[in-house]
Amino acid sequence: MPHISLPPEFPGIRSLFVYCPESAGPLNDLVQTILHDPSFSTLTPGERELIATYTSALNTCKYCTSTHGAIAKYQLGGNGDLVKAVVLNPAKAEISEKLKALLAIAAKVQVDGKNVKAEDIALAKEKGATDKEIHDTVLIAAAFCMYNRYVDGLATWAPDDDDVYNAIGKQRATEGYLTAPFKVSHAATAPGHP
Amino acid sequence: MPHISLPPEFPGIRSLFVYCPESAGPLNDLVQTILHDPSFSTLTPGERELIATYTSALNTCKYCTSTHGAIAKYQLGGNGDLVKAVVLNPAKAEISEKLKALLAIAAKVQVDGKNVKAEDIALAKEKGATDKEIHDTVLIAAAFCMYNRYVDGLATWAPDDDDVYNAIGKQRATEGYLTAPFKVSHAATAPGHP
Repeated sequence: MPHISLPPEFPGIRSLFVYCPESAGPLNDLVQTILHDPSFSTLTPGERELIATYTSALNTCKYCTSTHGAIAKYQLGGNGDLVKAVVLNPAKAEISEKLKALLAIAAKVQVDGKNVKAEDIALAKEKGATDKEIHDTVLIAAAFCMYNRYVDGLATWAPDDDDVYNAIGKQRATEGYLTAPFKVSHAATAPGHP
Repeated sequence: MPHISLPPEFPGIRSLFVYCPESAGPLNDLVQTILHDPSFSTLTPGERELIATYTSALNTCKYCTSTHGAIAKYQLGGNGDLVKAVVLNPAKAEISEKLKALLAIAAKVQVDGKNVKAEDIALAKEKGATDKEIHDTVLIAAAFCMYNRYVDGLATWAPDDDDVYNAIGKQRATEGYLTAPFKVSHAATAPGHP
């Protein structure tokens, strides 16, 4: 049950974007830039979505973890097992050593930016990360510390049905973040949800 | 010493905005909207800057606490003592009961959005807060959990000289967030800073 009166036909951050279009504009522009725009980063959209998903999982934000996990899956050619492995433990997932080092930086940022130490940066560079890729990782992890708190701080509702997240994942992976959200049936939610 | 190669003539998030203009656009649009635009909120810019300052202090982000503290001071007619009192303990500061309840929500969001409980919302409403003001408070606190981590996660430098923050505070309080930053002399920093 959300803490404030939100449009019930939209879950998670979608309900907040409909509730407050003034802030939805820059919030959507930001996520479109840092996760989706090919020209923004030499990290692929799939790698960037994994950083967003992993940070959201560390923040135990159900809606964002499920949504960006589904988007990551689509960006990675349907490899949902890889997304699950990253969420469980990036160090043991079948990803590049560079991405492992960047995800370790994201995990530090999730707790406090000051936790990122020179040795974390040195390791990422040793594994091939550029300054800009380190920048992008810190910004994505920081941004999801915002989105997760916005979604959970107002107690927005999160569907339980994987099909809903798959549909959102397909939409965002193919269209980006600037197209209108579709409505989600309440039948997709568990009993007790609005 | 920043973790990546940043333009040394700009401190804090200003160095990151110059380093990466693509993300600076939406990040500046967001802060302009949620803190500065009069039409966005029935909370005054001074109240919103206090929420940003308090959240930044809880995250022990020197640059953001000092900058937004200075902006808050200008927005509050030069009352720096009030800003210091809010940072120290909002419950004992000479502010409205409504703002005290909203700052208590911001403190919960700073740790985890899920920490915000129905009783926190009920208290804020009892003290006169609207749904939209609660929304704005959660969003501002969440946003500063991003800005603080972006600034600290890349180890940007923060001036030690109050005059620098006062100059930034005056600029942002009067011009908003969309005008170009001015350069800061390295003489304004403590020995050992870049």
